[in-house]
Amino acid sequence: MSDQSGNRRRLLPAAQSRWETVFPIVTTLRGYRREDFGHDLVAGTVVAVLTIPQAIAYAFLAGLPAEAGLYACMVPMVIYALMGSGREVVVGPVAIAALMVSSAVGEYAEAFSYRYLSITTTLAIEVGALLMLLKWLRMSGIVNLLSHPVIVGFVNAAAILIILSQLEAVFGISVPGTDSLFAEAFYIVGHLSEANAATFSLAILALGVMLFVSRFSVPLLRHIFPSLPDAHPVNRVGPMVATIVGVVLVAVFSLDQTYDVRVVGAVPAGLPPLTWPVLEFQLWIELLPTAAMIGLVAFVETYSIGTTLASRHRRRVNPDQELLALGAANVAAALTGAYPVAGSFSRSSVNVSAGARTNVSTLVCFLGIAATLLWFTPLFHFLPHAVLGVIIIASVLTLVDFTALRHQWHFNRRDAFINVGTLVAVLTFDVEAGLVIGIFISVALLIHRSSRPHIAIVGRIGTSEHFRNIERHDVETFPHVIAVRIDGSIYFANARHIENFLMQIVAERWELEHLVIVCSPVNFIDSSGLEMLDRVTRNLAALGIDVHLAEVKGPVMDQLETTDFIRRLSGKIYFTTDQAMRDLENFSPGKSDPSETNV
Amino acid sequence: MSDQSGNRRRLLPAAQSRWETVFPIVTTLRGYRREDFGHDLVAGTVVAVLTIPQAIAYAFLAGLPAEAGLYACMVPMVIYALMGSGREVVVGPVAIAALMVSSAVGEYAEAFSYRYLSITTTLAIEVGALLMLLKWLRMSGIVNLLSHPVIVGFVNAAAILIILSQLEAVFGISVPGTDSLFAEAFYIVGHLSEANAATFSLAILALGVMLFVSRFSVPLLRHIFPSLPDAHPVNRVGPMVATIVGVVLVAVFSLDQTYDVRVVGAVPAGLPPLTWPVLEFQLWIELLPTAAMIGLVAFVETYSIGTTLASRHRRRVNPDQELLALGAANVAAALTGAYPVAGSFSRSSVNVSAGARTNVSTLVCFLGIAATLLWFTPLFHFLPHAVLGVIIIASVLTLVDFTALRHQWHFNRRDAFINVGTLVAVLTFDVEAGLVIGIFISVALLIHRSSRPHIAIVGRIGTSEHFRNIERHDVETFPHVIAVRIDGSIYFANARHIENFLMQIVAERWELEHLVIVCSPVNFIDSSGLEMLDRVTRNLAALGIDVHLAEVKGPVMDQLETTDFIRRLSGKIYFTTDQAMRDLENFSPGKSDPSETNV
Repeated sequence: MSDQSGNRRRLLPAAQSRWETVFPIVTTLRGYRREDFGHDLVAGTVVAVLTIPQAIAYAFLAGLPAEAGLYACMVPMVIYALMGSGREVVVGPVAIAALMVSSAVGEYAEAFSYRYLSITTTLAIEVGALLMLLKWLRMSGIVNLLSHPVIVGFVNAAAILIILSQLEAVFGISVPGTDSLFAEAFYIVGHLSEANAATFSLAILALGVMLFVSRFSVPLLRHIFPSLPDAHPVNRVGPMVATIVGVVLVAVFSLDQTYDVRVVGAVPAGLPPLTWPVLEFQLWIELLPTAAMIGLVAFVETYSIGTTLASRHRRRVNPDQELLALGAANVAAALTGAYPVAGSFSRSSVNVSAGARTNVSTLVCFLGIAATLLWFTPLFHFLPHAVLGVIIIASVLTLVDFTALRHQWHFNRRDAFINVGTLVAVLTFDVEAGLVIGIFISVALLIHRSSRPHIAIVGRIGTSEHFRNIERHDVETFPHVIAVRIDGSIYFANARHIENFLMQIVAERWELEHLVIVCSPVNFIDSSGLEMLDRVTRNLAALGIDVHLAEVKGPVMDQLETTDFIRRLSGKIYFTTDQAMRDLENFSPGKSDPSETNV
Repeated sequence: MSDQSGNRRRLLPAAQSRWETVFPIVTTLRGYRREDFGHDLVAGTVVAVLTIPQAIAYAFLAGLPAEAGLYACMVPMVIYALMGSGREVVVGPVAIAALMVSSAVGEYAEAFSYRYLSITTTLAIEVGALLMLLKWLRMSGIVNLLSHPVIVGFVNAAAILIILSQLEAVFGISVPGTDSLFAEAFYIVGHLSEANAATFSLAILALGVMLFVSRFSVPLLRHIFPSLPDAHPVNRVGPMVATIVGVVLVAVFSLDQTYDVRVVGAVPAGLPPLTWPVLEFQLWIELLPTAAMIGLVAFVETYSIGTTLASRHRRRVNPDQELLALGAANVAAALTGAYPVAGSFSRSSVNVSAGARTNVSTLVCFLGIAATLLWFTPLFHFLPHAVLGVIIIASVLTLVDFTALRHQWHFNRRDAFINVGTLVAVLTFDVEAGLVIGIFISVALLIHRSSRPHIAIVGRIGTSEHFRNIERHDVETFPHVIAVRIDGSIYFANARHIENFLMQIVAERWELEHLVIVCSPVNFIDSSGLEMLDRVTRNLAALGIDVHLAEVKGPVMDQLETTDFIRRLSGKIYFTTDQAMRDLENFSPGKSDPSETNV
């Protein structure tokens, strides 16, 4: 129990210093225990072993040299570790951001050129700035824009595109410049006979090594360590083993020269340089939409990973802090020759399964990568692209999820439609347009759903002061006056529906002289709603029908009083529907119940 | 009264033939009276006089030859007159669609080239096809996406861009190719001394003529016809008078040769040719987003004009029919060498003020334009671009509306923000991106508003079966079981908020064993909501907390039964909250009221 409340105090600290607000790691370190470090050391080492080949592979996917991927695991990863509120999240290069970078920057410069790198840098600083702007505007709720079907459709389509993009490397076929990855894949399938046998053999071998490690490493190691659990992270080191095997084979047999196997080549040693984004106004403007898309996807990924991992330990992730941390990480990426970063699902979950307790594991991982950059870069010279291609394909295959589509098909057809629509849009246009279209469809369907509020014509129950729906209750009505209750706020998505309903009522009732709009359920009116009310009032006035309001809530009344609408209103504003009807019944030329006498 | 019910019968016909459904003009003609024709003849003639100079001017704005504008007033205008449900609406070339066409097609081809025209044709057929697709999908509710602030901001920005685009013609300065209209305007301001004096004089003269006609034509004509009303449409013929004056001056003094005044040049005589869109798959794909934007704007404009004009006569416009009619008009535009068309606000309102009774006035206008195309095109040879520029500027100035912004600023700051955001986005990027950004902002704010549903922890009132919010009522609670009522449907926009709320409750209550989610106000759950519930259930199960559901509505239960969620649910599904709490209280290790005994 004391441990629980201790945990709880760590979870919800009553008073934090400013340092602790910006750098949650301070809070973490304050409660840090020696045994935590043992766990973090192991986890950090395992993550580093997984990170190095992935970082190099994703750099090539993004159209950047190998070192840019490793740089993305230096300062940006550490910045997130210091500032992020997700303790187990590992931030760095990820496949989908790499695809989005290559798809966007490819329009401006040749991949692997100096210009390309500087445009990527510009993109990263914009991503960082936009995320920090969102934090400043307290708009972390932007994650709500991405519904689950959009994310699933988007990730599946991105995975397909990424896999297609690696076929060239895996088969060792060089494709003449084409517009689309599909054309490229089609070309490769048509020219399989020209495949480089050594390259393709290396790819198959890498695949075999990775499958072997993931299936048999734990059972084999059990002969030595009998208590090894099934999910031990040693089964995730396949990419590193495949990398080593590939490098050794190429180096020993000089496959790059004798069989023309494409390899990574020279990777400069040393820590990241300081880089500056290019200062071209037009370019900054043009890159903004791309930066917004990458920022949105990066934030949603990072935040989703963080909340999923944190909730397993009754912890919370603070979305505003995540915006700040991820924004700072991206600015750091821009200044250190890297490219846009996000939370990596594979590395974060390896981090957790390897027993990470805190972000200190990320700092351990950082040291491993720093050591690699300082002393081991020559080893990657002979790393074949085919092995990197297989590593990329294997890692994005884990992202593919078609069972969600099946569930959505049964559970909610609209969501299945959104999922497939996003997927098709990404494959047909590109990642950005596809994402926009997916968001558009899901939001359009939401608006469609909220565009038809319930509207009821109400009448007096007996001689009471209560007014109810005329379709459900036996109430008193008049031909010359009608009261309509709008069951919802009046805003752009439903203003036309309300207008249509009101005009329909008028078209059906030729004796109508007074329309009372009962506003008791109206919580707000936006300017589209006001404009609609104004138009309805004006058009009805031309037909000799007065519009009155009743039961307007205080805040809505305050809002209306700032406008001319009240002055232009042909009728009055009544406190209650009862008052309105008593007043207007008296002007009745053809009362349905002449015996009744009201004040 | 009999006339009224006659009208009403015309308004809501009980049984319509298939012909009448597709061609509302049949219904109109069935009730057509001889005196209607007199009115329609006058209105049609006045509209034709206004249309001819506008059509030529907007064609140049779109980057097309003069005849393309006139063709847009032939078949497309007639198709709408036959099929549209807005009786007074005049469809044809409009300024904003022209701007959108030139902004989009300019990327693919040189303005006024053959290639440019064929791409425009492709765009028009796509606009038409998309509108008809929307009709088929019954998605006329798409108009709800465009809120009033977005429309106002968009139209103002478009008007500014259109005015800037005409400075070149008005001053007779030729600007070296630049990227943006602002750069062009800047260049012109810097080179005013190079302005063509004759051109600019013609522009000033045209402006004077138009102002004179609009101010003084009615007062002067009153000397002859004393009963002329102030709003007589004769004050709208200014553009035609200015056109005639310009043509005469240029022709008589050969200004095009002596002073190098740019003129329209040869306009081919004859009716529209049959044209075919280009069949290039890649181009069709790339133009789709543009076509969607133009279609959306065209439909919203046409529908808004239609509803505004119709409601003055207690008539309704059918949005689905409008989609069909406008779609067919755009397909017709594509096949007859024209470009995307929409309802024209200026011509429709002139049509009404000139006394149009039915769409027959549009057919009269059609005959006038056909006669022009057949016999009078040589007259336009000497029409100076400067006069067209002034006509365009004058007509878009009537679209500019900054008072709405002032009202929004007082009424609803968010709407003012959306208005200005859309305007700035259109001016900074382009019309399409600006419109998308405007829609995005207004929808994001709507989602933000709907992302925080009310959620209440509820407890039993006394020994009753009623459960109420613990913050408002004195109710019974337990440390090991908690009931939470979610006051709204569970879907992508609010799933995270609900998840955060639930996890927060758990983080604060260490003795919790059972969480009951009371679903009485939940009308639907989408797959993002389901995924969230699934994740919460799984994460809480890992912490030893069971999740139960209570009071699930029938349709939601049917939906849930199609999924595995119920099987994976750690707790049970109860019919009522009362049953749930009676059941779970019994497993209580630390009941707050041990005296109570339940079955």
